[in-house]
Amino acid sequence: MNVTPPFTSHATELLTNYHAVRSYTDTLAAPLSSEDQCIQSMADVSPTKWHRGHTTWFFEAFLLNPYLVGYRRFHVAFDYLFNSYYEEVGQRHPRSERGNLSRPSCEEVAAYRAYADEAMDRLLAQPLDGDIIDLVTLGLHHEQQHQELLLMDIKHVLSTNQALWPAYSGQWIADGISSANHDQVMWVDYEGGEVWLGHSGDGFAYDNEGPCHRTFLMPYQLATQLITNGEWLQFMADGGYRTPTLWLSDGWHLVQEMGWRCPFYWYRQDDQWFEFTLAGLQPVILHEPVCHLSYYEADAFARWADARLPTEAEWEYAAGNVAGSENPLQELFGRRWQWTSSPYCAYPGFRSAPGAVGEYNGKFMSNQFVLRGGSCATSQGHIRATYRNFFHPHTRWHFSGVRLARDAS
Amino acid sequence: MNVTPPFTSHATELLTNYHAVRSYTDTLAAPLSSEDQCIQSMADVSPTKWHRGHTTWFFEAFLLNPYLVGYRRFHVAFDYLFNSYYEEVGQRHPRSERGNLSRPSCEEVAAYRAYADEAMDRLLAQPLDGDIIDLVTLGLHHEQQHQELLLMDIKHVLSTNQALWPAYSGQWIADGISSANHDQVMWVDYEGGEVWLGHSGDGFAYDNEGPCHRTFLMPYQLATQLITNGEWLQFMADGGYRTPTLWLSDGWHLVQEMGWRCPFYWYRQDDQWFEFTLAGLQPVILHEPVCHLSYYEADAFARWADARLPTEAEWEYAAGNVAGSENPLQELFGRRWQWTSSPYCAYPGFRSAPGAVGEYNGKFMSNQFVLRGGSCATSQGHIRATYRNFFHPHTRWHFSGVRLARDAS
Amino acid sequence: MNVTPPFTSHATELLTNYHAVRSYTDTLAAPLSSEDQCIQSMADVSPTKWHRGHTTWFFEAFLLNPYLVGYRRFHVAFDYLFNSYYEEVGQRHPRSERGNLSRPSCEEVAAYRAYADEAMDRLLAQPLDGDIIDLVTLGLHHEQQHQELLLMDIKHVLSTNQALWPAYSGQWIADGISSANHDQVMWVDYEGGEVWLGHSGDGFAYDNEGPCHRTFLMPYQLATQLITNGEWLQFMADGGYRTPTLWLSDGWHLVQEMGWRCPFYWYRQDDQWFEFTLAGLQPVILHEPVCHLSYYEADAFARWADARLPTEAEWEYAAGNVAGSENPLQELFGRRWQWTSSPYCAYPGFRSAPGAVGEYNGKFMSNQFVLRGGSCATSQGHIRATYRNFFHPHTRWHFSGVRLARDAS
Amino acid sequence: MNVTPPFTSHATELLTNYHAVRSYTDTLAAPLSSEDQCIQSMADVSPTKWHRGHTTWFFEAFLLNPYLVGYRRFHVAFDYLFNSYYEEVGQRHPRSERGNLSRPSCEEVAAYRAYADEAMDRLLAQPLDGDIIDLVTLGLHHEQQHQELLLMDIKHVLSTNQALWPAYSGQWIADGISSANHDQVMWVDYEGGEVWLGHSGDGFAYDNEGPCHRTFLMPYQLATQLITNGEWLQFMADGGYRTPTLWLSDGWHLVQEMGWRCPFYWYRQDDQWFEFTLAGLQPVILHEPVCHLSYYEADAFARWADARLPTEAEWEYAAGNVAGSENPLQELFGRRWQWTSSPYCAYPGFRSAPGAVGEYNGKFMSNQFVLRGGSCATSQGHIRATYRNFFHPHTRWHFSGVRLARDAS
Repeated sequence: MNVTPPFTSHATELLTNYHAVRSYTDTLAAPLSSEDQCIQSMADVSPTKWHRGHTTWFFEAFLLNPYLVGYRRFHVAFDYLFNSYYEEVGQRHPRSERGNLSRPSCEEVAAYRAYADEAMDRLLAQPLDGDIIDLVTLGLHHEQQHQELLLMDIKHVLSTNQALWPAYSGQWIADGISSANHDQVMWVDYEGGEVWLGHSGDGFAYDNEGPCHRTFLMPYQLATQLITNGEWLQFMADGGYRTPTLWLSDGWHLVQEMGWRCPFYWYRQDDQWFEFTLAGLQPVILHEPVCHLSYYEADAFARWADARLPTEAEWEYAAGNVAGSENPLQELFGRRWQWTSSPYCAYPGFRSAPGAVGEYNGKFMSNQFVLRGGSCATSQGHIRATYRNFFHPHTRWHFSGVRLARDAS
Repeated sequence: MNVTPPFTSHATELLTNYHAVRSYTDTLAAPLSSEDQCIQSMADVSPTKWHRGHTTWFFEAFLLNPYLVGYRRFHVAFDYLFNSYYEEVGQRHPRSERGNLSRPSCEEVAAYRAYADEAMDRLLAQPLDGDIIDLVTLGLHHEQQHQELLLMDIKHVLSTNQALWPAYSGQWIADGISSANHDQVMWVDYEGGEVWLGHSGDGFAYDNEGPCHRTFLMPYQLATQLITNGEWLQFMADGGYRTPTLWLSDGWHLVQEMGWRCPFYWYRQDDQWFEFTLAGLQPVILHEPVCHLSYYEADAFARWADARLPTEAEWEYAAGNVAGSENPLQELFGRRWQWTSSPYCAYPGFRSAPGAVGEYNGKFMSNQFVLRGGSCATSQGHIRATYRNFFHPHTRWHFSGVRLARDAS
Repeated sequence: MNVTPPFTSHATELLTNYHAVRSYTDTLAAPLSSEDQCIQSMADVSPTKWHRGHTTWFFEAFLLNPYLVGYRRFHVAFDYLFNSYYEEVGQRHPRSERGNLSRPSCEEVAAYRAYADEAMDRLLAQPLDGDIIDLVTLGLHHEQQHQELLLMDIKHVLSTNQALWPAYSGQWIADGISSANHDQVMWVDYEGGEVWLGHSGDGFAYDNEGPCHRTFLMPYQLATQLITNGEWLQFMADGGYRTPTLWLSDGWHLVQEMGWRCPFYWYRQDDQWFEFTLAGLQPVILHEPVCHLSYYEADAFARWADARLPTEAEWEYAAGNVAGSENPLQELFGRRWQWTSSPYCAYPGFRSAPGAVGEYNGKFMSNQFVLRGGSCATSQGHIRATYRNFFHPHTRWHFSGVRLARDAS
Repeated sequence: MNVTPPFTSHATELLTNYHAVRSYTDTLAAPLSSEDQCIQSMADVSPTKWHRGHTTWFFEAFLLNPYLVGYRRFHVAFDYLFNSYYEEVGQRHPRSERGNLSRPSCEEVAAYRAYADEAMDRLLAQPLDGDIIDLVTLGLHHEQQHQELLLMDIKHVLSTNQALWPAYSGQWIADGISSANHDQVMWVDYEGGEVWLGHSGDGFAYDNEGPCHRTFLMPYQLATQLITNGEWLQFMADGGYRTPTLWLSDGWHLVQEMGWRCPFYWYRQDDQWFEFTLAGLQPVILHEPVCHLSYYEADAFARWADARLPTEAEWEYAAGNVAGSENPLQELFGRRWQWTSSPYCAYPGFRSAPGAVGEYNGKFMSNQFVLRGGSCATSQGHIRATYRNFFHPHTRWHFSGVRLARDAS
């Protein structure tokens, strides 16, 4: 995937973008039965149906209710059912019990989407001031984020059915990606020094990508490519999962408690390694980038390889703003989220926006690490060099991989 | 409900019974969407879809596979997915994760049912020896048990949706039962002495209802009617849930840990008590028998009322084999399962049958109490005076109530 | 151990008994350091120091406070710290946090004991009415119960120290018992029929041992001796802990969850089985009665041996009231508590006494099974044929063993 | 407390320092009974006795065993019992079960200390190369860290005894600190710009304090004083603990789950706030710096006050290397550990040392936040401007407080 230009926030194009994003959600849900769409296979997972409702609610709560004169909400209970975590908006259905909701049905959710889309058409046909344009733009990026979450979550849902190993769609062979074989890790040198970190300029970015600010980098190197399944098998064969000194203390406790011995979604059958993918259970392909790792595993692998993970500043500086193909670093965007060693926290001068929208990113700044670069499941136009994804270090159900770094010698 | 004769096990009528029982399961599932049918709202609950599959698997595993020549099982994975707890049959999908299975779909389960029914038609058209007849009969009683479980479970599933309070079916107003008002507890005296306990004779009974054996009863009394919601409100008003000396020690810990203050499914709204029923949220009706109690609550109420719960021997002796209408005790059958003070254990001389069918009842003889009499959710023809239902004392999602007993003065 | 006469409740002998029982508690604590005495190694365990304080509090709360004119309690906080479970007496320190109390010190507890003993001397020197005599007698039996608990608990405390394996006292080799070798299980026949169960007559008994009442027994057999370690090793070698069909359902879940593979306190070292005893880590002696089993293990063993556990009525009838040496059954008393298949519940006509003393036994009548016969850790004079000990079926830290029963052929 | 010079690592003074540090541990343990010393009141707490043994083991494992010819270890099991978390050294007694170890006794631990001290005297009398001197110095700083942990832990142990509220020592009134009253928050301005962060130069520092490296600071302000109890009460009165928008998401979940309503160790009695201190239960003093806060509380307070927490770079730059009295910032050192908004992670170029000593700091670099400045419980000579303490954000049993920061206007 190249980094395509994000959709603009010009009013004239907003409606086109709105329809494109909204209908892509429906495209993603299309292969799924109503049963598939209502299951929550662990607390971190949300049902597909809920993603479809929640992204619609976002437009209703932040745009239609306040700004479309005469709008009547689709259902009075949906504020309660489809609010994710916005305390300012009010009480919510408990997150861990989203999978107990058989109602509204998939059909009712589809009706809710159509109803809100029709209303949004009317809103977007009006002259819009900048605040509204910004909120619509945010709503579309928000929906794109949920498109990737939808894929992460349905993969987990289907993976629990280990008698049938259902495929989401045969089009997602090896998660949709074929990769050129590469022989060995190559390193690119960076001088470092004083650099700027964070988003500036005109395009859309989340609040947590700014303010743009100066920082220092020591000279460093980044690997040109992502760690592959084949390299991961070497780590496993060398006792990586049984060697405590490779691991952070919290990680080692988890390895023992959970019995981790391989990446998430790997299964051993008849002396062969298989990987559960969106296309079903498939043999592990050696030259594919390894996927579905916790931070702890990524960090332990780096230590085993006598390297380390990059900081997000190192990654962002190297990624620059150039498209992937001109960069000596390959696989920067759209293959695997790359764990950085940077805890997710505020950039200097960051302040959350007032009101409920300010809860979008700022309140999660503890206990998480930043990932960069997007994955095969990231929606087109949703990724950029300054984008900061974040997850707790023990989580594994995202499309995460490893790019190594090291200090310049 | 009167106690209707159970379906016979004569071969000539077996096919009729088979179709009646099987189609009643479909009748019960009919008001439910495919989403409703795949949810497991707590570990004790199974999805409707699973009940439909498991009851079919019972016939496949115990009759079609061994006895129908040339039978090919519908799907090789269904032994794994639809086995409940039969260790002899093999590995099983974990019970607490039945709600993660989006596949097979409701439609596939319907096809499975039709496939097995067609095969059963062929089997039942053959000359049958007694063992097979007994197994078919067991399978039908098994399916009737799951019919009540299906209703218990779907009630729980729907109850978790407290924004929408979905009704299962409007026909089940106050769980389908209207009750005559009664003014006060009346007592019936029993002399006791040497009595016989347990099933004997020709009709069907589960293995745990026998052997029929002698026991002694001291003189005792039973209340003519079940405890009502109105009486339960008096218990609550008198601090019943806040008075530790009324409770068994294990029960009191639970009251504090869970914050119990009223029967399960009761909710307080605008200074009024409501009860979630299969017909949706309804005001509590004072003269209805109280429902959905743990053993601990039933026992505490009895102590508060200066009475006690009956033993199962006392209950069974009083129930006799007469139909409800001739008995001075009212509401014996088909209204509320009545908690007894008898732990569920083996009758003298009881031995489990060999093979997987022997796992049906015997292996649950610890930590449970016996309930008698059946409920409004019990299938026609499934109840009898010797029937022993059993649940752990902390559970509440069954249609359970209270009939008081006391020693003769 | 023979069944010695229990101490009488004649006022003239009460003081002698009082001193004997109280000083035996001190004898039991004597080998223990102050550190040993304050540890709670699991929630079921109480520190030795707490046992010493609680048994003293019993006399203070139920005798000195109400009946000794001018008595001033030793410390106002001890009602809170040393009340075990008497709701009527008031609030209590949480049971699971008894091991966090470094104060009062062992020395202060010793002073408390001396203070209360001096006051009891004064009380017992007065003319006493029957109620007081009964309460003192209850207090002494209560203290004897805690003497066995003290030994159970300190054994568990010391067992957790698996680097040092500290011995409580070298006198307790193989828990103090040498056993005659026996070659094979011998059976004694009992006709059964109408029998009387429960305590009657003059001697002391707990309230739960009555009322004495009639019951019926089918013809049955009991094994003359307890199951030995050698026989248990055969069960293990035959896959007893890996065969689900031998187990109750609740038990099998526990076997898997806890990884049980041998009796509690057994450890495998250098291809040999060792048992942690009060005399430290010792090789398992084949002809000793096996000890420290859950109900589930006892029940599974019986099923493996094509036998069953006795009911408490069968056990009590066979034990009679004769001393052990005249009985064809050996090892009836004072070796291992023998699990019965009887859930712990009320005898017909049982009612708890009013007031706090009524909480002694009655409120535990759920989820437990009865054990009979006493163990090597039971105090002299504390056991009798009608004595009903009870524990939850998953517990193992008591000195429990197995005597088999079976139906007469 | 002023920042006194740390003890030097010159060989000639090492012995003096060794004896001073070691005997101070004994001084801290002196007020405690043997019962006090063996209790572990939560998993994070270690018994006093264990701290005394573990600090001794550190010298044995890293100095006496490898470097003192002919040294025989005191007890073969102490490697297992007193190793804290050094995977390279071998297996360990589980951390959460340190409180189950009644043996070795306090007396045996004292003998162990004397034995190792005598051996260290011999080692330190020899000519020493730099590596050994560095290890001894590390061992002394390690023991000083445990001196503060000992005080934190015994405070927690004693706090659980809420019937007796035992005082550790009356000398620790209000935790030993009297504070000048201050009227309002005053701010000191800092220009920021390019600064150096981390330890350089000759004195001792832990590995995680380096390498010294450049970073940028935006203009900022720091409060001259710590937040007081009085100011915290205003936060509470303004609904601070009930306002979700003040909190990080993880923190708000914790507030609800744990029912936090005030700082740790605060208790409400008779309409007055009390604080459990090392001198027992004391009324909350309004002008004292507030203590025992989680990161989440500190962060929420800052948001409520329209400010933020400082980064560790901001704090360190402002602290400089000057002694506290010359600095416009008061209460920098030795009063309360000051939460920073900086997650604990590696400085650029950081690498753990090889071998077990490398496990000292590096493996904890996830999920923790840095605190700066030391507390009233920090040992003399153990604090410096570059010192990085770290705890998980939910923890509260450390002597932590709040200093506010904000962006320059």
